[in-house]
Amino acid sequence: MRTVFWEDNQLKMIDQRILPGRFEVLSYKDHRSVAQAITDMVVRGAPAIGAAAGFGLALAGFESASSSTEGLLADLQTASATLKASRPTAVNLAWAVDRIMGKVSSLSGGSGATEVEADVIRNFVLEEAQRIADEDVEINKRMAEHGAKLIDDGDTLIHHCNTGALATVDWGTALGVIRTAHEQGKKIHVLVDETRPRLQGARLTAWELEQYGISYEIISDNTAGYFLKAGKVQKCFVGSDRTAANGDVANKIGTYMLALAAHDNGVPFYPVVPTSTIDLSLAHGDLIPIEERNPQEVLGLEFMGERVAPQNAKARNIAFDVTPNRLVTGIVTENGVVYPPFEVNLKKAVLGE
Amino acid sequence: MRTVFWEDNQLKMIDQRILPGRFEVLSYKDHRSVAQAITDMVVRGAPAIGAAAGFGLALAGFESASSSTEGLLADLQTASATLKASRPTAVNLAWAVDRIMGKVSSLSGGSGATEVEADVIRNFVLEEAQRIADEDVEINKRMAEHGAKLIDDGDTLIHHCNTGALATVDWGTALGVIRTAHEQGKKIHVLVDETRPRLQGARLTAWELEQYGISYEIISDNTAGYFLKAGKVQKCFVGSDRTAANGDVANKIGTYMLALAAHDNGVPFYPVVPTSTIDLSLAHGDLIPIEERNPQEVLGLEFMGERVAPQNAKARNIAFDVTPNRLVTGIVTENGVVYPPFEVNLKKAVLGE
Repeated sequence: MRTVFWEDNQLKMIDQRILPGRFEVLSYKDHRSVAQAITDMVVRGAPAIGAAAGFGLALAGFESASSSTEGLLADLQTASATLKASRPTAVNLAWAVDRIMGKVSSLSGGSGATEVEADVIRNFVLEEAQRIADEDVEINKRMAEHGAKLIDDGDTLIHHCNTGALATVDWGTALGVIRTAHEQGKKIHVLVDETRPRLQGARLTAWELEQYGISYEIISDNTAGYFLKAGKVQKCFVGSDRTAANGDVANKIGTYMLALAAHDNGVPFYPVVPTSTIDLSLAHGDLIPIEERNPQEVLGLEFMGERVAPQNAKARNIAFDVTPNRLVTGIVTENGVVYPPFEVNLKKAVLGE
Repeated sequence: MRTVFWEDNQLKMIDQRILPGRFEVLSYKDHRSVAQAITDMVVRGAPAIGAAAGFGLALAGFESASSSTEGLLADLQTASATLKASRPTAVNLAWAVDRIMGKVSSLSGGSGATEVEADVIRNFVLEEAQRIADEDVEINKRMAEHGAKLIDDGDTLIHHCNTGALATVDWGTALGVIRTAHEQGKKIHVLVDETRPRLQGARLTAWELEQYGISYEIISDNTAGYFLKAGKVQKCFVGSDRTAANGDVANKIGTYMLALAAHDNGVPFYPVVPTSTIDLSLAHGDLIPIEERNPQEVLGLEFMGERVAPQNAKARNIAFDVTPNRLVTGIVTENGVVYPPFEVNLKKAVLGE
């Protein structure tokens, strides 16, 4: 089963908030509830929310009562803005929506043109959303092939957050690389950063690795430095929510500190990044918008049945950080592994030059 | 009220496992249950467990049925070993026990000598344990005076784990510095690392800061890098469980990654370390024994009432790491702030040369 898929004229998504305790698939019939689901992190992971937004736009088309192409396009534009505003950091959201709207615009001969019937556009939006989803799986497999070559038999790897099938439509980015190396018969062991505050590592990555039969141990995020310094780790693999033109990598909070510890100990650090996640319009990572979320995600923690923080405590909940390109060994894309100078080589990988 | 104190012929300690939800003081009448309480982290923090071990040894004296000095000394030796084995990393445990036993040995004229009556020794052990506790408070106040000079009005500070009154007999080490700066009228704000896995920051440091009226926000440990990189932090203060002769600092897991992020952004990083915590017998930090604790401390986490990790998940729970001296700006001791070269200057500070 895919994480995000279209069935019975609905968008269906695995509810990632309740795993690993419970497995449930939720159904969505309108684009506003899809946007809310993205905000609430029913679905998370840059490629997965890109695909979800695509299907959300398809729902917006079917929701629109307009019989005119012009009216439908206006409704789709409004829905695009709603979907793109659901989370700020991952560029895949805007990328998927803009890709569909760009093609719709070409199809209809530009804004306001009426050469194409509204229903043709409605169906086209769904088809393009489906193409984005299908391509994501294929791209992940290609990234995994490139990335798996970096992994040696016997390696211990550190992985941050969740970048597996759950973070994508299927297979995964960084975790997809690890999964492919495992399927190639390489004996690997994964130290899973639990990934505070939302614990995607302890919840989702551990759950996936359990299913794939890959050896793993969960560690608190701040334990990664210990194992790196002790010489117990051969490589680090992470995902990315947006990578700037110079190779600065925005990813789940904590990635920067992990990259520092890897660099301090000469351990290679590889973000695994579909080109849809690379934003060539941003010269460097400080331009990437960083989401701050509800402090309750930090404060709501319980241990042995008791709330951890004092009742009146305040918290800050920054969802992402930016790892500067100087700490990045190579960036795995579906077009191969990109090495420095990233300013030059990332553009080539994205544009196929 | 002190964290660790002697009353009614018993050792009394605030139960730090249940704060901030509940406040309870537990009583101990025998040294074995004191050793167990140290292992179980009823009491934690290097200076606090040193003081607890001292009083534990006093209990062992009163427990001993021996009327002969020889027999009492043998019982105290056995109890010393039990107490020293209760946790491996903090050197204060061994330091306090060895200090008392060394003085007892001088008093009794060496092993096996019987010039002094057993009851005189029993009382001496208690008096010396009380002196260690009293000195700890006085030493903390002196460290706080030295350290507070490093803090400027308006500073935002990052603090890791708990190093306050709860980690000591009273007042605190790194948090004592922050508290003194606050009492001097400096406006400061503290970003409190929650400090996984046992969350001493979110539980204990937040609780203490709340009581002192010091402005703070809890952050997940991996968020420190974000704030440091954003230029929002002026200094970092941490404690230490054992510092080697060269200034390598063993402290709560995560300290190394925090120090890396501070260093990468030119933010001063200060361990606050009573000289009782400096182990001149160890040339460097790789010689410091590092405790690994029960994986359930990582896996037992709950969020919104549900267990986070899969039921069969494995975890590693390393309690401390070592921050290399190259990442340390200065070490605050009761004898002043020590700067590099630590190999030379720490010895001077400890031996008073």
